[in-house]
Amino acid sequence: MSTLSTQPYKGTRDYYPEDKFIQNHIFNVWRRVVEGYGYDEYGAPMLEPIDIYAAKSGQELVNDQTYVFTDRGGRTVAIRPEMTPSISRMVAGRRQELSYPARLYSIANFMRYERPQRGREREFWQLNVDIFGVDHVEADAEIITMADDILKQLGGKSDDYVIRINNRQFINYMMVQYLGLDDVQAQQMVKLFDRRGKITQSDFEEQAGLIFGDENGDRFQKIEQLLSATTLDQLPDELRGADSLQQMETLFTKLKIAGVESVVFDATLMRGLDYYTGTVFEVFDTHPENNRSLFGGGRYDGLVSAFGAEPISAVGMAPGSTMIENFLAVRDLTPAYRPSASTTIVVIDEAHDTAAAVASSLRKAGVAVSVDISRRKLDKQLKTALKRAVSHIIFVGPEDTDTFMLKDLAAETEERLSVEQIAARLA
Amino acid sequence: MSTLSTQPYKGTRDYYPEDKFIQNHIFNVWRRVVEGYGYDEYGAPMLEPIDIYAAKSGQELVNDQTYVFTDRGGRTVAIRPEMTPSISRMVAGRRQELSYPARLYSIANFMRYERPQRGREREFWQLNVDIFGVDHVEADAEIITMADDILKQLGGKSDDYVIRINNRQFINYMMVQYLGLDDVQAQQMVKLFDRRGKITQSDFEEQAGLIFGDENGDRFQKIEQLLSATTLDQLPDELRGADSLQQMETLFTKLKIAGVESVVFDATLMRGLDYYTGTVFEVFDTHPENNRSLFGGGRYDGLVSAFGAEPISAVGMAPGSTMIENFLAVRDLTPAYRPSASTTIVVIDEAHDTAAAVASSLRKAGVAVSVDISRRKLDKQLKTALKRAVSHIIFVGPEDTDTFMLKDLAAETEERLSVEQIAARLA
Repeated sequence: MSTLSTQPYKGTRDYYPEDKFIQNHIFNVWRRVVEGYGYDEYGAPMLEPIDIYAAKSGQELVNDQTYVFTDRGGRTVAIRPEMTPSISRMVAGRRQELSYPARLYSIANFMRYERPQRGREREFWQLNVDIFGVDHVEADAEIITMADDILKQLGGKSDDYVIRINNRQFINYMMVQYLGLDDVQAQQMVKLFDRRGKITQSDFEEQAGLIFGDENGDRFQKIEQLLSATTLDQLPDELRGADSLQQMETLFTKLKIAGVESVVFDATLMRGLDYYTGTVFEVFDTHPENNRSLFGGGRYDGLVSAFGAEPISAVGMAPGSTMIENFLAVRDLTPAYRPSASTTIVVIDEAHDTAAAVASSLRKAGVAVSVDISRRKLDKQLKTALKRAVSHIIFVGPEDTDTFMLKDLAAETEERLSVEQIAARLA
Repeated sequence: MSTLSTQPYKGTRDYYPEDKFIQNHIFNVWRRVVEGYGYDEYGAPMLEPIDIYAAKSGQELVNDQTYVFTDRGGRTVAIRPEMTPSISRMVAGRRQELSYPARLYSIANFMRYERPQRGREREFWQLNVDIFGVDHVEADAEIITMADDILKQLGGKSDDYVIRINNRQFINYMMVQYLGLDDVQAQQMVKLFDRRGKITQSDFEEQAGLIFGDENGDRFQKIEQLLSATTLDQLPDELRGADSLQQMETLFTKLKIAGVESVVFDATLMRGLDYYTGTVFEVFDTHPENNRSLFGGGRYDGLVSAFGAEPISAVGMAPGSTMIENFLAVRDLTPAYRPSASTTIVVIDEAHDTAAAVASSLRKAGVAVSVDISRRKLDKQLKTALKRAVSHIIFVGPEDTDTFMLKDLAAETEERLSVEQIAARLA
C-alpha cells in the first residue's frame, strides 16, 4: 500500500489541541455573549439543496464558491457556504409555533471554494446570530451591540475596531433620488462604490464618468460629499427626506445609548449578499497588521418569505473564528494554552491499579486527572508531564496506600496527602 | 420565483432550540467525562481525500455509504463518514511533537449515505475519543471505562446496557487454531458469526456446514461452546494458550477494578471496520423498546503507520448523539428544556431605552436577560414570556426609573427592586 499524505485537504486546517483551545475560547465568548441576550442555540444540516442559495445569496457565492455535487439519489446539493438561508428555511418551517422576537444562534462549519489566503479558509467556523420578527431598528441595534460586546469580551478596546454602517434602502435613495441615476446606472454605481477602497481616485472618477455617460461636475461633487461623510449629520440636506436616513439616525442614537462607540457611516459599504434589505454593517480591524474586515451583517426582511411563508423581518450577523483569531493574535489577546487536566499521575513500578483507583476517586470529586499509563521510566514520565504544562503531579508507587506525594509545580512544593486532601486542594 | 421547500435535506435533521438543548446536554456530559480523564479536544476538516478511507475503513463504508465527489480542482474528496482515519492522519503528521500517551477527543458532524431509520441519520454527530501510544490493555480499559462513565453520568444504571467485548486476534485464534479453518473459511465464518443475531439457528448451522465443506459434528459443538460463553472462564480450555485471551482476562480484571459491571464476552462481536487489530467492544441498550447497539470501539494499532509513520498503537470509541438520545428517551432521562435566558423584560409603552439600560446592567452582572422589543401590547408580551418558560419577568414602563417590578413565576411573587437587587436575586 502506498503511503497516504498527512496533509489536510487543501485550504482546510487541522486543529491540534493548542489550536482548538483558541477556537474554543472564541466559541465560549460568543456563546456567553449571545446567551446573555437570550439567544437560543439551533443546528442545521451541513448539506442543503442548491436552490436555497440560488434564490438570494448572490451569483459569485453560488456559481464560483459553493461546493456543489449530485448525490446518489440525483439531487443537486451544496455544502452550506453560509447559514442565513438555512435558518430562514427553519423559521419558515415553524413560523406558527415560534414566539417572536425569535432569537437564534448557531456555531457551525461551512465551506467555500476560495483561493486560500490569510484569514480565509475553505472550511471555516462561524457564529450565526439572528433575530426574527422585529421591524424596528431596535433589532438592528441589538445585533450590532452584540458585535461590539463580543469584541470587548474578547479583550478588544473601542479603538481596536470600527463598525461601518449603511442601509440598502438609503443606498437606493442616494443612487436614484440624489444622484438621479436610472436602474442600470444605479446598479453600476453600487458596484463602483463597493470597489472604492481598491482603486485609485482617478480610476474611480473615470469609471463614474462612464456610468453617467457625461462629465457632470455637479454629480462628482455630490459623490464626494457622500464618500467623505462618516457621520450622518455630514450628509447633504437634500437626503434628509429619506425614511432610511431617519432609521439610521435612530439606530445611531440607540447604539450610543448602548455604549457602542466605534460607529461610523460609510456610503460605500454594500455587502455582497443579495438578500439584505435595510441596515448593513461591517466591523473593521484598525490594527495596521490586520487592517481588514472582520465580519458583518444586516437586515434581510425578504428571505423567509422565499420559503412560502408570510414575510418575517430578520437581522443577523456572522463572525468567523479565523478572523477573530487574527484580531486576538495581533494584540496579544490570545489565551495561553491549558490542557483539559492540569493534574497528572506519574506511575512508579507499575502501580497501575492503585493509580487507577486514585484517579477514579479524584474524578468523582470533580478533579480532572490523567494517568501516565505508558509504563515508561519515571524520568520520561516526568519529562512528558512538564511538556504538557500540567500544574500538579501525583506520584503513585507500589508502597503508597493511604497517602500520595503531591507536587505543585508553580509553588515548587511537595506534600504527602490523602486522596481526600488532594481532592480538596485541587477542586 | 417558485417557493422553496422548508424541509431539511433527506435524512438530515433541523435542530430547533428544544432539540439542540438535548444534544448539548449529551455533548456537555461527553466533554465533562473525557476531559476528566485528561483528553484534549481537536478538530479535523469535514472533507478528506477518499484514499484515507479506502485504505482501511472497509468496502461497504467507502463504496456504498460515503458522500464522495470531485472538487473544482479535480480532487476526489469525501465528506467524512467517520473520524478515525482523520485523527490517525493528524497523529502521524505530528508523531514527533506529540507526547504519549496522547489523549485526544472531538465532537463533530459526519455524513453517511444510509437508508434513514430510527437512530440512523445521514448527518450525525459523534464524540471521538482516542488514546495513542499505549500497547497495554490499560488503554483499552480506560476507553471502556469512559464508555461506562458516560452512560452513568447521563443517568443510566448498570443494567440499562451491556458492554460486549471480543478481540480481533482472538477471533483469528478461534477460527484458525481452534476450529482449524483455512484463511478463506475463516473469513466466511467471521461473516457468519457477525450475522449470528440476524438468522435462525438452523440457517446458521446450514451455512456453517457449507463453510466446513462437511458435516463435522465436533466443530458444531465447538462453535456452540464459543457462542454460549459470556464470561472468559466459560471458554474451552484449549483456548487458554492464546495471548489474546490472556489480554482479555487482564482487561476484564481492570474493568472490574474500575467498577465497570455490565461486561460480557461475545464471540460473535466482529465490528465492521477493517482497521481493528485487538480489543473490539460494543455497548448495547437492554431496554425492550431500544434493544440495539448504541456505539462501539476498539484497538487499531496499524492505522497511523498507513500515513508513513512508524506504528503507533491506538484505542478509541465513537458514541453518536442520536443513539444516546434514544437511550435517554426510553428511560425518561431527557432533561427538560430551559431557554438560555430565564429572565425576560416586558416593555410597557415603548420604554425601550430604559429597558435596554436595565438589560445592559443585568448582563454586566452576569444575568442573561432578553428584552421583548416586539412593541406589541402587554398581554401579548406576557403570553410570549410564559410560552418561553422563563422563570422571571421584569416590567419596565415609562414611569420606572430606580426600581422595577420583578415577577417570580415559580414563587408567584411580585416585588419592586433596584437593578442591583434584581441582579443579586437572579445571579
